[in-house]
Amino acid sequence: MNTPTYDELSAHFTRLHHYAHLGSIVSWDRAANMPPKGNDARASAMAELAALMHRLRTEPALGDRIVRAEQEPLSDHQRANLREIRREWLQATALPESLVTRQELASSRCEHAWRTQRPANDWRGFLDNWQPVVALAREEAALLAAQTGLSKYDAMMDRFEPGMRSEQVGRVFGAVRQWLPDLIDRVVERQSKQTLIDARGPFPVPAQQALCQRVVAMLGFDFAAGRLDTSTHPFSGGVPEDVRMTTRYREDEFLPALMGTVHETGHGRYEQNRPREWLGQPVSEARSMAIHESQSLSFEMQLGSHPGFAKVIAPLLGQAFGEQPAFEPGNLWRLMTRVKRGLIRVDADEVTYPAHVILRYEIERPLIEGEIEPEDVPALWDQKMAELLHLDTRGNFKDGPLQDVHWPESLFGYFPCYSLGAMYAAQWFAAMRRAMPDLDARIGRGEFAPVFDWLRDNIWQQGSRWSTDELAVRASGEVLNPAHFKAHLEARYLG
Amino acid sequence: MNTPTYDELSAHFTRLHHYAHLGSIVSWDRAANMPPKGNDARASAMAELAALMHRLRTEPALGDRIVRAEQEPLSDHQRANLREIRREWLQATALPESLVTRQELASSRCEHAWRTQRPANDWRGFLDNWQPVVALAREEAALLAAQTGLSKYDAMMDRFEPGMRSEQVGRVFGAVRQWLPDLIDRVVERQSKQTLIDARGPFPVPAQQALCQRVVAMLGFDFAAGRLDTSTHPFSGGVPEDVRMTTRYREDEFLPALMGTVHETGHGRYEQNRPREWLGQPVSEARSMAIHESQSLSFEMQLGSHPGFAKVIAPLLGQAFGEQPAFEPGNLWRLMTRVKRGLIRVDADEVTYPAHVILRYEIERPLIEGEIEPEDVPALWDQKMAELLHLDTRGNFKDGPLQDVHWPESLFGYFPCYSLGAMYAAQWFAAMRRAMPDLDARIGRGEFAPVFDWLRDNIWQQGSRWSTDELAVRASGEVLNPAHFKAHLEARYLG
Repeated sequence: MNTPTYDELSAHFTRLHHYAHLGSIVSWDRAANMPPKGNDARASAMAELAALMHRLRTEPALGDRIVRAEQEPLSDHQRANLREIRREWLQATALPESLVTRQELASSRCEHAWRTQRPANDWRGFLDNWQPVVALAREEAALLAAQTGLSKYDAMMDRFEPGMRSEQVGRVFGAVRQWLPDLIDRVVERQSKQTLIDARGPFPVPAQQALCQRVVAMLGFDFAAGRLDTSTHPFSGGVPEDVRMTTRYREDEFLPALMGTVHETGHGRYEQNRPREWLGQPVSEARSMAIHESQSLSFEMQLGSHPGFAKVIAPLLGQAFGEQPAFEPGNLWRLMTRVKRGLIRVDADEVTYPAHVILRYEIERPLIEGEIEPEDVPALWDQKMAELLHLDTRGNFKDGPLQDVHWPESLFGYFPCYSLGAMYAAQWFAAMRRAMPDLDARIGRGEFAPVFDWLRDNIWQQGSRWSTDELAVRASGEVLNPAHFKAHLEARYLG
Repeated sequence: MNTPTYDELSAHFTRLHHYAHLGSIVSWDRAANMPPKGNDARASAMAELAALMHRLRTEPALGDRIVRAEQEPLSDHQRANLREIRREWLQATALPESLVTRQELASSRCEHAWRTQRPANDWRGFLDNWQPVVALAREEAALLAAQTGLSKYDAMMDRFEPGMRSEQVGRVFGAVRQWLPDLIDRVVERQSKQTLIDARGPFPVPAQQALCQRVVAMLGFDFAAGRLDTSTHPFSGGVPEDVRMTTRYREDEFLPALMGTVHETGHGRYEQNRPREWLGQPVSEARSMAIHESQSLSFEMQLGSHPGFAKVIAPLLGQAFGEQPAFEPGNLWRLMTRVKRGLIRVDADEVTYPAHVILRYEIERPLIEGEIEPEDVPALWDQKMAELLHLDTRGNFKDGPLQDVHWPESLFGYFPCYSLGAMYAAQWFAAMRRAMPDLDARIGRGEFAPVFDWLRDNIWQQGSRWSTDELAVRASGEVLNPAHFKAHLEARYLG
């Protein structure tokens, strides 16, 4: 087929991909290796690369080329790639550089001050810096809305979760809101009657590291194409051929590092198994942030918090830390699935987590739409924490609206992805169980391959070939359906 | 001062410097961290960066801008910077891309085959791939010679050692050649009568790593602006704000890793202490490869193999590996300064090392000038090894002309820098002793600061402010003078 303009575009994005490779390795290095005095020079070097990539993404000729390529006789895959190229280009060209610069200044000032304002519980001080961040985010949202024809918040969310709209999120979260507080009550009540033996530390860091390496290998991560290292804030980075996962360790507990690592392994395997023949092109990228999170939560929650998985890893814990009663498989599983209402999202279990996300969604959506103002946030926060988790947060800003880095960093429209991911993960496992009725027994025998095979075929290998809805239908027969998440929680916690 | 064109040039080189930062970190990462399956993607990403940097270094407008900037009212420092900018630009534009590409292909084929031909002792097979490498290197040398007005070999050497000419190298090496074989005889004879207790291993790698970290810190390396890690081939990389040194460990001996690390620390401190206010500009770069090597050898040989240094580190060895008779300071120093004729350059001690370099220089200079042919190399090698080290190498190609990666990689004109560096290092310490007659006593008390202060003021902080000859005169009162090296060897080994 003669597709000269498409080929030019494709070469252009391969070049961008090479630069992105460099960026992802030096970012990982900054988090995992860089000594403190390297920071300023590194920031300058990374800013230079970002500027270069921005110039390439917004080259004036691109828009025209995309239109011309759309006239060429493309294969289905090429057409999907071109759709994603158009998407990237629209995002890159949506905002004038002057706005981007003002946003970077405002949010970096806000985020920097937040680091001390949060521990000082200083909401007033924070508000002074945050108001301009919100004002600029609304400007951004208005421009994105004008470009896409979406509402302001939807246009923001669409960057992370293409195709997802607040109408759908509102319906899904609205349904969860109906049953979640009551379900939490019942689970907490039920667990209060269980006996539970706590694990006794210390858990030496080298033993934890060796355990994590072993579990990650057991979960099929290819260590010839990636690494597991340590950083303050765990993440997955690198490139598909060389995935860099990080985790963090504390001597007094082992479950957070272990389960955090299992979580990152879900992200890591998705990246390692994106379609090889399309690497470097947008169509090979992960579909969306919720789908990415559905992989980390398939690993951490669906598989990693499965009683069968607890049975499989229990002996490894004894080998790593010495035998103790807490490592009896049933007790270990109860430790892994302990539900507790708390103030902090990142410490939440899978049952209470959606409450934290729904609360944030119900605040940031009207905030971006201009229906509420930044100074309204604490009162709304208090009200919703009382409704959803029966917790009193009045006056406690640091464990309330100041707890996350997202808002100071002007990251609006992202929060829903966490819980949408949890719901997709439940939906994937429901589909797997329909196809493999003995799935749970196999997990209990340490046979995880059926899970990985299903995820590889249905999610990882699909890249961005389909829209999220199409991907979900092809994988599970339906678009996002939160009933699977409810059924999962009821079966696991009340069954 | 109004220097618009100079300022433009300076900004251009800052940009290049930022890209070089990314390149040096991903190169280090490739050596220290990258899993095997990451190699192809990394190679593509690094090639993309190299192409970008080449385009920036050869931008057609640069030549004109340099000429115009030379008319502007510059400070002395700016003028020195502009001189170095011109140098970089001339080097970048000297060769047509077609030649560079042909060279890359030929040398990568030769180097790849060499990896198996060397262990197989296959000189004939090697020669088939090496002849085109030499032919292309001569083409390169002819172009560089035409551009610079130098002889072919001098033009090649000038890239690594600006200002150094084969007339001077020939004179210096010719002098060393007169006294070195006899000096080696006398040292070996003398040492054969000394009693020597070998250290008994194993030396566990974690203990070696901790020891090296401690010694590197004692040598003033700033760990807040750099790291020490492990790689197969030790090197120093990174950027001045974040220097990345690597070393390698074997359980059965500790001196190679320790002294190799001391060596890299000399490179590392030079980089960490280049002039801050000029970082990013060519004038801040290290002066030359011989001057760089003079720093690693100031650390490894002048200071690190000093009897006073042996006294200082002896107790650390006992702490690291347990006490043993070999760690008695006098014995330890004799272990560190053992002289032994050998076939392999990289294993050579400081007394025999120049013999290996002189031999290579005496072969590669006429080879590039077209006075001898690749097939003449083994016979010349055998003859010179017999003259210089009384060793018979006939038929042993793998420990002869096949031993180094330099020639297969088309790296001609570099070898002299190793021994010129050793000579400069001796010259620096002679100057220090004139200024500080109690220097040796202070080293024996663990007071290394006078050494570091002298090197910082006279070498590190000077960057490329002066030509190498000017630098040497300002630091030591004279240009390169090999008499100091001879005096050093005689004092240390025959004194």
